[in-house]
Amino acid sequence: MNNKIKSYLQENREAHLHELFDLLAIPSISALPDHKEDVSKAANWVAESLKKIGMENVTIHPTKGHPVVYGDWLHAEGKPTVLIYGHYDVQPVDPLHLWDSPPFAPEIRDEKLYARGASDDKGQTFMHIKALEAILQSEETLPLNFKFCIEGEEEVGSPNLPAFVEENKELLAADVIVISDTSMMERGKPTICYGVRGLAGLQIDVKGSNSDLHSGLYGGGVHNPINALVELLASFHNENGEVTVEGFYDQVLPLTDEEKQAYQDLHFDEEQQRKELGVPALYGEKGYSYLERTWVRPTLDINGIYGGFQGDGIKTVIPAEAHAKITCRLVPNQDPEIIVDQLKAHIEKNKPKGVDISIALFDKGAPYVTPFDHPAIQAAGRAYEAVYQVPTSYTRGGGSLPIISTLDQVLHAPIVLMGFGLPTENFHAPNEHFHLENFDKGMETLCTYWFELEKSL
Amino acid sequence: MNNKIKSYLQENREAHLHELFDLLAIPSISALPDHKEDVSKAANWVAESLKKIGMENVTIHPTKGHPVVYGDWLHAEGKPTVLIYGHYDVQPVDPLHLWDSPPFAPEIRDEKLYARGASDDKGQTFMHIKALEAILQSEETLPLNFKFCIEGEEEVGSPNLPAFVEENKELLAADVIVISDTSMMERGKPTICYGVRGLAGLQIDVKGSNSDLHSGLYGGGVHNPINALVELLASFHNENGEVTVEGFYDQVLPLTDEEKQAYQDLHFDEEQQRKELGVPALYGEKGYSYLERTWVRPTLDINGIYGGFQGDGIKTVIPAEAHAKITCRLVPNQDPEIIVDQLKAHIEKNKPKGVDISIALFDKGAPYVTPFDHPAIQAAGRAYEAVYQVPTSYTRGGGSLPIISTLDQVLHAPIVLMGFGLPTENFHAPNEHFHLENFDKGMETLCTYWFELEKSL
Repeated sequence: MNNKIKSYLQENREAHLHELFDLLAIPSISALPDHKEDVSKAANWVAESLKKIGMENVTIHPTKGHPVVYGDWLHAEGKPTVLIYGHYDVQPVDPLHLWDSPPFAPEIRDEKLYARGASDDKGQTFMHIKALEAILQSEETLPLNFKFCIEGEEEVGSPNLPAFVEENKELLAADVIVISDTSMMERGKPTICYGVRGLAGLQIDVKGSNSDLHSGLYGGGVHNPINALVELLASFHNENGEVTVEGFYDQVLPLTDEEKQAYQDLHFDEEQQRKELGVPALYGEKGYSYLERTWVRPTLDINGIYGGFQGDGIKTVIPAEAHAKITCRLVPNQDPEIIVDQLKAHIEKNKPKGVDISIALFDKGAPYVTPFDHPAIQAAGRAYEAVYQVPTSYTRGGGSLPIISTLDQVLHAPIVLMGFGLPTENFHAPNEHFHLENFDKGMETLCTYWFELEKSL
Repeated sequence: MNNKIKSYLQENREAHLHELFDLLAIPSISALPDHKEDVSKAANWVAESLKKIGMENVTIHPTKGHPVVYGDWLHAEGKPTVLIYGHYDVQPVDPLHLWDSPPFAPEIRDEKLYARGASDDKGQTFMHIKALEAILQSEETLPLNFKFCIEGEEEVGSPNLPAFVEENKELLAADVIVISDTSMMERGKPTICYGVRGLAGLQIDVKGSNSDLHSGLYGGGVHNPINALVELLASFHNENGEVTVEGFYDQVLPLTDEEKQAYQDLHFDEEQQRKELGVPALYGEKGYSYLERTWVRPTLDINGIYGGFQGDGIKTVIPAEAHAKITCRLVPNQDPEIIVDQLKAHIEKNKPKGVDISIALFDKGAPYVTPFDHPAIQAAGRAYEAVYQVPTSYTRGGGSLPIISTLDQVLHAPIVLMGFGLPTENFHAPNEHFHLENFDKGMETLCTYWFELEKSL
């Protein structure tokens, strides 16, 4: 990357942030039907933004859910093609009262940009657009061919993207796929994530009597749906923090000695992590380090539970119903379909008496790993090092990007995950934010990468 | 009871129901601070109603919480005094969408009066007032002396009544205490409840990290507060439905053979009960019948649980907090103070790792039993039989009336529980209602009782 590009980014910083504010102000929450218009508005915004920098064939592809925005620039004759994937939808914002500033009124405090989507993933998607703008404005051309595929359903498990990718595999064909939707290890420590966990989950609905009951009149006579639910849920783990679902670990690839060593070399400070999270102790499957547990070991988490009285004080009720949402993070080579069957079998086997149980499945995503010595990944590492001036860490990520396995299986291209977020930036939580240091350095890194990649492939 | 009184009740039925509608329309939910004014309004309504029928010394006694309404009529010289206890406060109404008609817009459908408090306890308290009105209007006098003590905090565990009773024990002194706040066994089966269960409970608050976390990035690294909570809650019972809290059953009076036989003689139809409740099976402590489990065995129920995402679909969050409310129904001679200490010890012993646990205590009530051959109870049985024309059943009740042990311990008078509700009337649940058949027969029974009682004491 030359100084002209760098100067362009510096000179246009305020204008870029101003533009990003507009995108962040759109409450494009894909999970909530009431926000359908907003999600559509965000798709239009992204399409306009692509056109403005000179992308061609910009199209908003309708799906059964929210649309996919496509755009390309294919004038680097004979050069490889990069597909940039991102998403313009965001997570719900509840509990709203815990936000220090409104989630859709972006605000910079202490060089951090606060807004829902600031980091996950509007901010990171926007950086890709502006990095190409910088090169085009400075050089009037790009070193590689580029395609954008920006979807609006990532936060609800990308239910319609597999069909879209399958139907448009010629349109999306690429030599490398680049995604910026993950985090760096920590501040100042650039990181390439070469594998992510998959996802499988379901909702458990417990139904007892026809109606809420008085716990004095009926207590002891019927099974309380909440009591029944907690018994069932507690059966998913043993005292070592292991998941007790039969067969759950059967397909898990054991960690190699080389990988184990590589993780130890990261000198991850568990005590520092504990302090930052504010917990009395870190916790998880016995016999594994924190990084191993969050990167290469599968989990089962209860993401939501509700039933009975939630107000202040006491209401002596036996509720008619109780509910829980559980998801598993999966690692290679666990198959989400098999895991869901195992979860169902576990529930059937541990079904509490005296109540009815029903389940509803959530969308699934397979886990994924790319060899970390792949040239596209090593070029990314060099780009980070050129900008951040420290060695790049190669990690695996805990989060699931359900689309990754689809992109892998349909497009057969290596996937490079270049994350510019930080683990402390409250993805999916109140007060999501994005460190502007990584907004600036991230765009420089991307510009550098495209030239490095051109030399490597 | 003479025909003049009966005619008075019949002739004034519409007017009485109309009056009761006004009381039921006041949303006097004692648990919710927003309804403080409504609770106060209901207290005034009761006081005015007592004055109107000729009660004297009517006073609204302020407490630290909601007020107690007192009134008396003490002109039956040389005759015993009856203290009538009731409550004008009601339970919360959530979930509101399950009500077929608004909870505070009373409506008669199919000879049942639908409204929050219709049965528990505004309806039953109102019957006492109107029964005395009927006698006074017909006879210009009463066969006994009467005192009313109508409180506004029963549904939140009567936190201020013990102090009130202690400070006013001269004012409230009586030879018999009568309470109508329980149920008949079933329709057409008049029932005197000669014992009730006590109550002890607490809220468990589990706190994990500072903020909600992304379950992909952190899952496996920290203990999920919901996972931790369900593990703790599941530890309260074993597979036989027994409570595992150490010492929990130590003070429980075993059922006598005589009582066991008396319950068998009731020929309670468990299958019918199962069908009415709409559950696949009844459930509870192994080795006991349904009636034994709900009347004379203690329980531990989770009345509410909440944490994480409760919306539609999926949100892959590890919440920062999770909460549960638990209460135990206690039987003689369990001491609520000891039980609370045992619960706290159980929580301490089974405390999950990696999270912080805090607890908040709820108000307590001791269990209570009166000998069922006491003359005041036998007179009540005769009054029921005279009106309902079937034998009276003598039962024990599952519900707790926390005030009973206070009244017993401070006033040293036998307590007669004459319930006119039905177990199917959705106390504490949506669509609470009151069968008007028992409104009519109940008032006749009360009028009959006062004359029977005068002859017995």
